[in-house]
Amino acid sequence: MGLSYLVYPGAHHTRFHHALGCMHLMQKAVATLREKNVSISKEEEQALYIAILLHDIGHGPFSHAMEHSIVNIHHEDISILFMNKLNQEFDGKLSLAIEIFKGNYHRKFLHQLISGQLDMDRMDYLKRDSFYSGVAEGNINSERLIQMLNVVDDSLVIDEKGIYSVEKFLVARRLMYWQAYLHKTSIVAEAMLTKTLQRAKELNDTGKKLVCGSAFGFFLENKIDQTNFDNDILEKFARLDDNDVISALKEWQYCDDFVLKNLSEMIINRDLLKVEVSSDKISKEKISALENSFCESQNITPKEAKYFIFKGKISNKAYDKKSEPIEILLKDGQKEDLIEASDKSYLRNLSEEVVKYYLCFPKLIRENSQVI
Amino acid sequence: MGLSYLVYPGAHHTRFHHALGCMHLMQKAVATLREKNVSISKEEEQALYIAILLHDIGHGPFSHAMEHSIVNIHHEDISILFMNKLNQEFDGKLSLAIEIFKGNYHRKFLHQLISGQLDMDRMDYLKRDSFYSGVAEGNINSERLIQMLNVVDDSLVIDEKGIYSVEKFLVARRLMYWQAYLHKTSIVAEAMLTKTLQRAKELNDTGKKLVCGSAFGFFLENKIDQTNFDNDILEKFARLDDNDVISALKEWQYCDDFVLKNLSEMIINRDLLKVEVSSDKISKEKISALENSFCESQNITPKEAKYFIFKGKISNKAYDKKSEPIEILLKDGQKEDLIEASDKSYLRNLSEEVVKYYLCFPKLIRENSQVI
Amino acid sequence: MGLSYLVYPGAHHTRFHHALGCMHLMQKAVATLREKNVSISKEEEQALYIAILLHDIGHGPFSHAMEHSIVNIHHEDISILFMNKLNQEFDGKLSLAIEIFKGNYHRKFLHQLISGQLDMDRMDYLKRDSFYSGVAEGNINSERLIQMLNVVDDSLVIDEKGIYSVEKFLVARRLMYWQAYLHKTSIVAEAMLTKTLQRAKELNDTGKKLVCGSAFGFFLENKIDQTNFDNDILEKFARLDDNDVISALKEWQYCDDFVLKNLSEMIINRDLLKVEVSSDKISKEKISALENSFCESQNITPKEAKYFIFKGKISNKAYDKKSEPIEILLKDGQKEDLIEASDKSYLRNLSEEVVKYYLCFPKLIRENSQVI
Amino acid sequence: MGLSYLVYPGAHHTRFHHALGCMHLMQKAVATLREKNVSISKEEEQALYIAILLHDIGHGPFSHAMEHSIVNIHHEDISILFMNKLNQEFDGKLSLAIEIFKGNYHRKFLHQLISGQLDMDRMDYLKRDSFYSGVAEGNINSERLIQMLNVVDDSLVIDEKGIYSVEKFLVARRLMYWQAYLHKTSIVAEAMLTKTLQRAKELNDTGKKLVCGSAFGFFLENKIDQTNFDNDILEKFARLDDNDVISALKEWQYCDDFVLKNLSEMIINRDLLKVEVSSDKISKEKISALENSFCESQNITPKEAKYFIFKGKISNKAYDKKSEPIEILLKDGQKEDLIEASDKSYLRNLSEEVVKYYLCFPKLIRENSQVI
Repeated sequence: MGLSYLVYPGAHHTRFHHALGCMHLMQKAVATLREKNVSISKEEEQALYIAILLHDIGHGPFSHAMEHSIVNIHHEDISILFMNKLNQEFDGKLSLAIEIFKGNYHRKFLHQLISGQLDMDRMDYLKRDSFYSGVAEGNINSERLIQMLNVVDDSLVIDEKGIYSVEKFLVARRLMYWQAYLHKTSIVAEAMLTKTLQRAKELNDTGKKLVCGSAFGFFLENKIDQTNFDNDILEKFARLDDNDVISALKEWQYCDDFVLKNLSEMIINRDLLKVEVSSDKISKEKISALENSFCESQNITPKEAKYFIFKGKISNKAYDKKSEPIEILLKDGQKEDLIEASDKSYLRNLSEEVVKYYLCFPKLIRENSQVI
Repeated sequence: MGLSYLVYPGAHHTRFHHALGCMHLMQKAVATLREKNVSISKEEEQALYIAILLHDIGHGPFSHAMEHSIVNIHHEDISILFMNKLNQEFDGKLSLAIEIFKGNYHRKFLHQLISGQLDMDRMDYLKRDSFYSGVAEGNINSERLIQMLNVVDDSLVIDEKGIYSVEKFLVARRLMYWQAYLHKTSIVAEAMLTKTLQRAKELNDTGKKLVCGSAFGFFLENKIDQTNFDNDILEKFARLDDNDVISALKEWQYCDDFVLKNLSEMIINRDLLKVEVSSDKISKEKISALENSFCESQNITPKEAKYFIFKGKISNKAYDKKSEPIEILLKDGQKEDLIEASDKSYLRNLSEEVVKYYLCFPKLIRENSQVI
Repeated sequence: MGLSYLVYPGAHHTRFHHALGCMHLMQKAVATLREKNVSISKEEEQALYIAILLHDIGHGPFSHAMEHSIVNIHHEDISILFMNKLNQEFDGKLSLAIEIFKGNYHRKFLHQLISGQLDMDRMDYLKRDSFYSGVAEGNINSERLIQMLNVVDDSLVIDEKGIYSVEKFLVARRLMYWQAYLHKTSIVAEAMLTKTLQRAKELNDTGKKLVCGSAFGFFLENKIDQTNFDNDILEKFARLDDNDVISALKEWQYCDDFVLKNLSEMIINRDLLKVEVSSDKISKEKISALENSFCESQNITPKEAKYFIFKGKISNKAYDKKSEPIEILLKDGQKEDLIEASDKSYLRNLSEEVVKYYLCFPKLIRENSQVI
Repeated sequence: MGLSYLVYPGAHHTRFHHALGCMHLMQKAVATLREKNVSISKEEEQALYIAILLHDIGHGPFSHAMEHSIVNIHHEDISILFMNKLNQEFDGKLSLAIEIFKGNYHRKFLHQLISGQLDMDRMDYLKRDSFYSGVAEGNINSERLIQMLNVVDDSLVIDEKGIYSVEKFLVARRLMYWQAYLHKTSIVAEAMLTKTLQRAKELNDTGKKLVCGSAFGFFLENKIDQTNFDNDILEKFARLDDNDVISALKEWQYCDDFVLKNLSEMIINRDLLKVEVSSDKISKEKISALENSFCESQNITPKEAKYFIFKGKISNKAYDKKSEPIEILLKDGQKEDLIEASDKSYLRNLSEEVVKYYLCFPKLIRENSQVI
């Protein structure tokens, strides 16, 4: 949940907890499906456990902020690099897990259990994040959802009597997005961290030497992307954790660059930018006015001001029907699309995208000026 | 939850638990509203507690089944009779509570806390029934919902940032209806109990003496309705509890009336009628065919068969906008209708009625005949 | 928990819940022991499940009160009668379960899992009663206790690292006894119910006809003990439940016997006798004085007064070392007695009996007289 | 809980959570005592909240390890320095809180609520650590304990009927010590961290420059103790957090000192020393033999070996009667010492100290040699 603990102080759980939780749910899913006479071989079972344990291994510290600033490679690609490396070390024992993870294995439902509309990943993180954040609206009944899983033609389906549990799951997911993952304070904190890392990279590229840990420094000082991400770099990447980022920010509070110093200080002291969320787009004029005012009062350039005044878009679809529809297994053995099977096709709404726009700017502008 | 423990064995909680729970939530609601500078006098506070503690006191054992067979008076009317009686005993100390309960007091929100779209009654029973039944889909965040309550012009509203909690509440209510209160086995059990009591009344009216407890016997043997429900009858009504009904059914297993004996046996042994639920109406032809087959095989009259073969309709509206819309208090101080305030008016669906039809019939017909 | 709901209103769970819970724990125990390479055959496994599901089946309604008044046969004997009957119906499929239940099977640990210092029965009821009563002091970690189970020479032992969990279990058991099972209000309620049933039996034996359900009436009117408890009587016994007892008490409130009428009324209205608990024995003089005062004020005989004024003894040993010591399996493979293995033999105390004495008497005596 | 997450991965909660939890309990304690007519003024109430919120503020990262290596000043003294500083900033508003915290205020129970046998600190950390670690044996009923609090002569007492809750509290505390705080893996991890920091300090003192964050570096490079701990140092101390220590260890894995490199690596990779716990003291001969073997195999000096081979003592008294006895308020208004009031003086055992001895040494010695 990145910096969400700035909003929900209880949200201090780790990716390690999540990996163990997913593994636990996967064991239940395997047991349930076998009871329903879905054959899963010993090898497929082991591969499922390996794949779910490792599915997030490519996430660096503050993953999304890092990806948009310093490490220009998608975390799923890094996950596969790690798996390949482990596969070498373990003499090919991960080959099937990797095939399933990539979606190349012919039995589609195994991949769907790892990554799909009703995968063990989502079931664990929704329940876990709801629990630790205290956003009770996001709690789901993962036990029952798993009991409702079934397989037809190697494809995952939900038994008819589980339809209300799926409805609950989709609504919970929607609410977790708007109340936790897309909470305006989480959004601004993550955006500020991204800006901070972008600024650090920028300063480094102009020759400025910044204080930070050695592994983190490597990524700051080198241009890393998919083309040159070899095993040496992977080993360095594995050394990175949240401590590196937070420790760097703590040091950067005392540097002499206006942008880096202030952004770092604001994050460390939880004195974040003001954020306004709206269903309407933010006008360019509004942004310009804010920029001008801020440049003037702080005596900085417009380029610098853009690190403190920016807009963005957040959106969520609780149910992404297009990417992969959820199918209901009716009592008569037929399959029906979830939306059609729901009372009054009521779930159609949940497949529509909800979009909001946000604007971030320094508090002092609002307090000291007439701009807004 | 009536006979729902036949479906969910854990659902063994009592109306007494519910009354205490409502009282507890009401205390929180009063504290929250006062913190928001809604003035509530000591007298109004006490009246709220009295009214919520007593709001369900008019429910007899297996309330709805009883109301449709033996005690022809609505439980809310009996609640008021009890309150009036207590008011006499306590020298008028319940007068304000009764005014609020009846909706006659000028400050409308006090009544809404007792009986409305977001009253303490619903908040307690949804959470409690979800907990004890294990239907996790119905769990709600009553703490937060109460924190989001506010009052404008003596009318209850929800603070804007609570809109997702209301959404969750309405969806949870919808799911509790379809998974617990309207669960097909709950429906058939309640219908069978109603039929059993109707049959007992009918037999009594034709002069047959049935074994049962003395208070219960009084209601079986006399025609009681709103016109003659005096204090003596109220005192007798107060003696009734679930034990009377269950004990009577246990005795009636050994009586010589085919209908009463069989219905009683089936409920006591949890060997219920078969029930089929559908979104389409049940045809008369289907019912006739079942009746004919059953009459023939059991050598009984069509009138008797109707106690075992019958249809019905169940319906639910998660949000009954017409009876009383929920209003959102926006940050700018304006009020907005809940549906308009929701993302993409997404909640409009929840105010639409969902209707289903059910058909009950003896298991043996299905097993032994070609009828269905 | 009998009438404990008069003290702890939440304690409304049933013996059926308990049977399911024991079964669930037994499944965990079997899985754990097999993982530790304790061989348990399919037949033994099934027998364990049957035996634990049925271990309490001989309990009648308000079991202990009934046993000391109307049904003069021990509930374990009735359990065996039920099992034998089922064994006939199921062509001998319960034979092994019955052997294990009786303690006749050569592998002792199977019996210990059903009935012993650390059996599934205790683990379930302590946790369940603690949960429903709200006496959090009695909560135990049954999951971990089961994980610590092991078997040496067909006898149950606890792995060394589980010693603190056993300590916790014994302390929790001790606290549940003193805070719930032996709570003074539970004690007085149970004693009053026993007295009520004894009085009913006595009145019946003198020819008085009491109103009650037919199955209950059978036991009231006949002298039933181990010598004449045949299958017909077993069938009648199976019909009894709490409803019969409570319904009878409700009727007896209106009978003309001073003792029966008043005891019934007091239980139904939860207006119990006063009870005093002390570590010293109650003197005969104190009792006599109370009796005299009560006889005089109520104009009743000393024999009648004894139904309202009586003393008793309650005692508990958290750990009954003599009946069967708990053994710890040390890391070196040796077994050691639990007390010796505990820090500073600290657990010796828990094997000592704690005894207390109680005196019950009508409230009005205390209030109206100088006696006490 | 320091490095306990290496044993119990869930134990990832923070001191901030604990401070909020203590505050919450203190609010309940104040409300309970006032209901019992203990007068607590508005000023005393506020002072209690300030004192409990700040009671742990002097803890640095990995507090105990740090105190025994780098920052030679007790955390309670630093807490007072922080409070004094805040008191200046807030114009003396913390004066009463500081008096209470130090135990100088004449109403002793206010200090006992902050720091005593039954203070809010212990109640929160036992319940919290039990919850997050999963060591269910340590769970306590803090709600009820607080409800049993009372005050006689400005001194904290427990109402008689709360005696079983106190027993449960003391046993839970004892079990938490042996299963969590003094778990052998927690012990070895903390000892290794202390050794690592001591080595870093030693290397620094011999002129070696170690990579680490700037605030942490300040404490490594200067000799800080109570005599020179001024406001500037306090400000630097406030900047320290767990990130500094973990980041330093991560860097030190790559340094060229055998001791620092290996200890750092072992902690970061959770590849800890072997630890043996026993009730007997560890002999010098055993240690010498281990040291010799290790020196030889690794080609290091005995002084270096001592960083990997060492012994220690752990001890716990669940109830420290001498420092401050718990007093029970009997129903007759008299006070009685807890031990005397307990059944059979059973709690005397809990006031006896339990002592164990541990020996740490590298795994490879055990595996590769005949020494042990």
